[in-house]
This record gives sequence, structure tokens and C-alpha cells, in this order.
Amino acid sequence: MKRAFNFSAGPSMLPLDVIEKVAAELTDYNGCGESVMEMSHRSAEFKQILKDAEADLRDLMSIPDNYKVLFLQGGGTLQFSMVPLNLMTGSKKADYIVGGSWAKKAAKEAAKFGDVKVVASSEDDNFTYIPKVDKSQIRPDADYVHITYNNTIYGTHYAEVPDVGDVTLVADMSSCILSENIDVSKFGLIYAGAQKNIGPAGMTLVIVREDLLGKAPADIPIYLDYQIHADNDSSYNTPPCFAIYVAGEVFKKIKREGGVEVLLKANVEKAKMLYDYIDGSGFYKCPVAKEDRSLMNVVFVTGNGDLDKKFVSQAKEKGLHNLGGHRSIGGMRASIYNAMPKEGVEALIDFMEEFRKENA
Amino acid sequence: MKRAFNFSAGPSMLPLDVIEKVAAELTDYNGCGESVMEMSHRSAEFKQILKDAEADLRDLMSIPDNYKVLFLQGGGTLQFSMVPLNLMTGSKKADYIVGGSWAKKAAKEAAKFGDVKVVASSEDDNFTYIPKVDKSQIRPDADYVHITYNNTIYGTHYAEVPDVGDVTLVADMSSCILSENIDVSKFGLIYAGAQKNIGPAGMTLVIVREDLLGKAPADIPIYLDYQIHADNDSSYNTPPCFAIYVAGEVFKKIKREGGVEVLLKANVEKAKMLYDYIDGSGFYKCPVAKEDRSLMNVVFVTGNGDLDKKFVSQAKEKGLHNLGGHRSIGGMRASIYNAMPKEGVEALIDFMEEFRKENA
Repeated sequence: MKRAFNFSAGPSMLPLDVIEKVAAELTDYNGCGESVMEMSHRSAEFKQILKDAEADLRDLMSIPDNYKVLFLQGGGTLQFSMVPLNLMTGSKKADYIVGGSWAKKAAKEAAKFGDVKVVASSEDDNFTYIPKVDKSQIRPDADYVHITYNNTIYGTHYAEVPDVGDVTLVADMSSCILSENIDVSKFGLIYAGAQKNIGPAGMTLVIVREDLLGKAPADIPIYLDYQIHADNDSSYNTPPCFAIYVAGEVFKKIKREGGVEVLLKANVEKAKMLYDYIDGSGFYKCPVAKEDRSLMNVVFVTGNGDLDKKFVSQAKEKGLHNLGGHRSIGGMRASIYNAMPKEGVEALIDFMEEFRKENA
Repeated sequence: MKRAFNFSAGPSMLPLDVIEKVAAELTDYNGCGESVMEMSHRSAEFKQILKDAEADLRDLMSIPDNYKVLFLQGGGTLQFSMVPLNLMTGSKKADYIVGGSWAKKAAKEAAKFGDVKVVASSEDDNFTYIPKVDKSQIRPDADYVHITYNNTIYGTHYAEVPDVGDVTLVADMSSCILSENIDVSKFGLIYAGAQKNIGPAGMTLVIVREDLLGKAPADIPIYLDYQIHADNDSSYNTPPCFAIYVAGEVFKKIKREGGVEVLLKANVEKAKMLYDYIDGSGFYKCPVAKEDRSLMNVVFVTGNGDLDKKFVSQAKEKGLHNLGGHRSIGGMRASIYNAMPKEGVEALIDFMEEFRKENA
């Protein structure tokens, strides 16, 4: 068995020891005679798994007690609807800062349900930077401001939490959650698809301040009401049990190995190696403004579309998978989430240098 | 390792050989160096998994070409909203036949979005039978009629597809899908949560006739529009990849072993053994009308609540798990889905007889 270095933007690499543990107990979890895949979501065993996953996540992110943690389905896409349906219920206004196509989709979706204003966008320069916003640009009566904290496609990331004054801040953290320390109290709501830093696809994490709950109109689709899930410990209906279990194993591993601080240090090191190599190569170019560069998604190009394709294809043969940029922009993208070992980045740089020598 | 016989209503038993195969290839699927949990949903490998799962299901259920097969998230609960949002768009009327609490919830949810009429209900007798409907009771201009084909909680099941005239028939088949042959062409839409007969929780199957698509208003939440998923081969956003893969392995196994016909024969045999024992025991009683009894969920009581609890608890000690009835009705329920071996039912009957002798 030779494991690839998988640079996919998501679903993406998981820690090998977690996968091995899951495999070892797949027919019989903890001596109970059942697989987690087979376990009633009302069983004592699964309730414990869910409880531990939440407790460990609260610990890892220092989530304050006045926030609920929800394990849902439907991905970021369903959150694009759930956020406005639940939160855009006061002034029915929401402001969106658009730093990439996911943020744009989120804003477009929210506009179905209320008065949405795009207060800033970096689309004018192909989303190569994080749009800077002064809080005076935010409508003071907006129900919330929405940001995408890390843009998976464009490789940009907020260097700091933007100051939006007293308005509730909502963030899509799908591609950076648990990769850095976040002060949850600065946000009203954080959501994240699991399939990048947390676990397998099919589970979406929502962290929401309690006072924001219970304001959704009674006629929204019941699954889309956060309150229902909060009142029922994410088990109003059958939750994505297996994905929650794997996520819980990932949380345990992060705790065991020192927490998010340790991951952040490794992530900074991995990203620095790669950006330094790109910037110094004289061959590859990262189009992203230096101060806005993502630790998770490193985009780069050779400047020649055919050469980019050749790069992605030859890399795959070397066991460096999924280095193609998002289909909307092409080029290359190395997603180096928590589970990507330093050795993966080293192998990538070795290949990049080899490719440069052959093609420069 | 001693595997339990797990009578859970869902999530529930999966075939052991499928779990073992999944475990064996969990760190490296098919020599590609990645786990299916880590695989990009845009990768050639995963696209093949998805394609095969759909093709095998089409084959197993003889799904006509003018039906789309969708692999979604959100469970039956999200379907309670998606069905009316997508289909109740003509006369904005829908008729519901209510044979259990899930059907009742489905009707309640649909009433948020249009004119819902409960045309028949068996709630008067605690849902112990399937309400019979003459097609003259159906509003001829209703956009659809909704039924729950098998009632998981009450252990009832349609002996035949009801005649609803020319009105589109929609069925929740969560707890009976793939347990019997179904003439898909009699239905406009069939949906089923995966966690009973298909695979792990977190995936919902929708089979929908193409002419019913594309009628949803533009302002419904985008994830709730069937057309979006149909246009994008269930990959508009990241699908629940791992659950789809396990379901695909279950489909392959069913095909390998002779198809749904073979399963139906085994299911009839298992259910007959259990119902015959109950009816002849003089101690246990099944409250369900004989002609409406489910092959999948067998409910029974001793007539003494305390004794029922003792039964469930002692059974668990013997490796017969999750025999408690749904928390809303108590008593006992043995869910004997496709993956429950005949030996499991035999072991249950042995225990029931032992318990009877000690407690009669």
C-alpha cells in the first residue's frame, strides 16, 4: 500500500492513524458488536460519540458556553440558505463581503430572502485579495455581515477578523476551521463543511450564538431551522452518524497532539516553505497579495496553460494528487490542510523544482 | 469479535462482508492511494463510484429511463419539505394518506407550502392498519398524493400500490426500499433515507420522474431544488461521498446474490417465522392488522409495560440489540431489514420462547 499525497481542495486527506483506527473498529466498535455505521442514533453508544465530539470541539476552539454546536447535513450550500432564513429576520438586511465565488453564491442565495448588499468585492481583480472594509461601510441595522474567512478557490484568507462594529459577523470557515486559533466570541455564527479539515463529506458544522436562535419564521422548511437542531442535540432526525464519529476521532487526535496551536505552527511552516519556493523560483507565480495568502490553499501558475496541465498530470504520476486549480480558474492549487504532512509539501517542492528544470 | 444481532429501526445492520470490504480498503481504495473518505468528488475514481452506484440501483429496481436518481443529504425530513416545494406548484394542492407519525409529519410540513388535505388516516386506531382509500376520495386536481409505503414505527405496510387514479403518487420508502420488487413507473417520486436497507445514515435517495422537475419556484433554497441536483449528477455541491460508496457496495452485493427477488423471498420467510411464533405464542401479541403487516418492522407487546422493558433489557444481554419499540409507543419492535440474517430471527424467537416460559 502506497498512500498518495492528496492535495485535493476537499474532500481531502485525513490523518492516516485516524483512518486506520476507524478501519480496525469498523465491524465492532468498542466491543459493542456493531459498526458505527449500523448504530442507532438513539443508542447510548452513539450518544456518547456525539457528546464527546462536541465536548472535544468546544475544548479545541474554546467555544463559549452561550454558543450551540450543531452537526448538520447539506454542506456550505445549505448554509447559504439557512443563514439568511434564520438570521435575516430583523431588518431583513444583510451585508456580504465577497472575496470569492463561494461568497458570491452565498450572497446570491441570501438575496432570495431579503435585502442583500455586497459592501465590498475583490472580483475586479479575480479575487486575488481580501476586500478591505471599513465598518462605516456596513449598514448599522444589517442583521449580519457575511464573510468567507478562507477562499478555497483563490487561496486568500483574512489575516485578522474584520471590524464590523456592532453588527453580527457570520463566517464560512469551511477551508480553515481548526487550522488556526479563532476567537469564536467575535462571531455570531461560524459554519464549515467537514470535508477539508474535519472529516468525510456529508457533515456540516455550525457554531451559533444562542441569542440568534429562535427567530426564524415558522414557515421555513423544518430542517432549515437551527432551533430545531439545537433543541434536539443535532438529533431531531437521523444525523450523519458516521461522519460525526470520524470527525470526533480527528478532534481527539488534535487534542492528543497538543491542540490547534500545534497545528497552526505546522501549517505556517508548510505554507512558508511552499510560498518561499514559489516566490523564489522565477518560474512559478502566486497571484495572491502576500498579506492575504491562505495557509490552506496555495494557488500558483506557470503562466502557460498547457504547461500547467502537464504539471498536474505528471505530478499525479509521482503520487502527488489533485494539484489542478479549480475548474473555474485553472492553474495549480495545493491544498495543504491539517492532515497534509510536511513530507507532502517537501515532495511537492522537489517535484516542482524538477519540473522547472525540465520546462524553464 | 462477537457481532450482535441488531434489530434497530435505523441506522441498522449492514452486510458483514460489505463492512469487511470497506474496512480492508479504507486507507487505499482500489490501489489509488487514497481512502474514499478523502477522495475529491470531482475525481475520476469517485465519479466512477457514483456512476456504478446509480447504474446498479437502476438495474436492481428496473428504474425507467425517464426517471432521475439523486443521492442527497438531509434525510426523509428534508424530503418532507422538498417534495411540496418542488411538486406542489400546479394547483398547490396535495393529498396525504396518513398511516403513521412520519406521514403525519410530512403532511404537517407540506401544509406550510400549500393546500394539504389528509384524505385518510388510521390514527383513530393507533396506526395499526393502512388506511384504505378509494380514488374518488383523492382531489383530481391535486399535484400529488403522498403515502408512507412502510411505517417503521407501527409495523404496517401497503400490500399493494394504492390506486390514486391519474394523480401523481409520491412514496416515502425509507424502511422498505430494496426489500421487495416495486413497479417504479407507478410512482412520480420515491424517496428513502439510506440508513435502513441501503447504507450508513447521511444519504437520501430520490427517484423522480423527469417531467416533475423544473417546476419549483426560483426563490426556494437552492439545495432544495431537485433540478439543480439532477442537472449536476448529484454533485452540485459535495455529495455524501462515503455513504454513496457504501450504498454502492450494498447494491453490488444484492446484484451478486440474485437481486431483490432473492431478498424478498428471504424477507418473507423471516417475517413469517416471527409473526407465526408471535400469533401462536399465547403470550406476545402483534397489534397490526394481518393484511397490513410489515416485512421489515415487526411490532409486538406482552401487554405489560414493565415486562416489555425487562424483555428489551434481557435481550440486549443476549446480543439481541435495540428491540425496544419507538419511544412514542413503547412495547417491542424487531426491525428485520435485508441485512438481518435468518439466524438473527431464529435467535430472537429462541429468546422470546425462553422469556415466555419464565414470565408467562
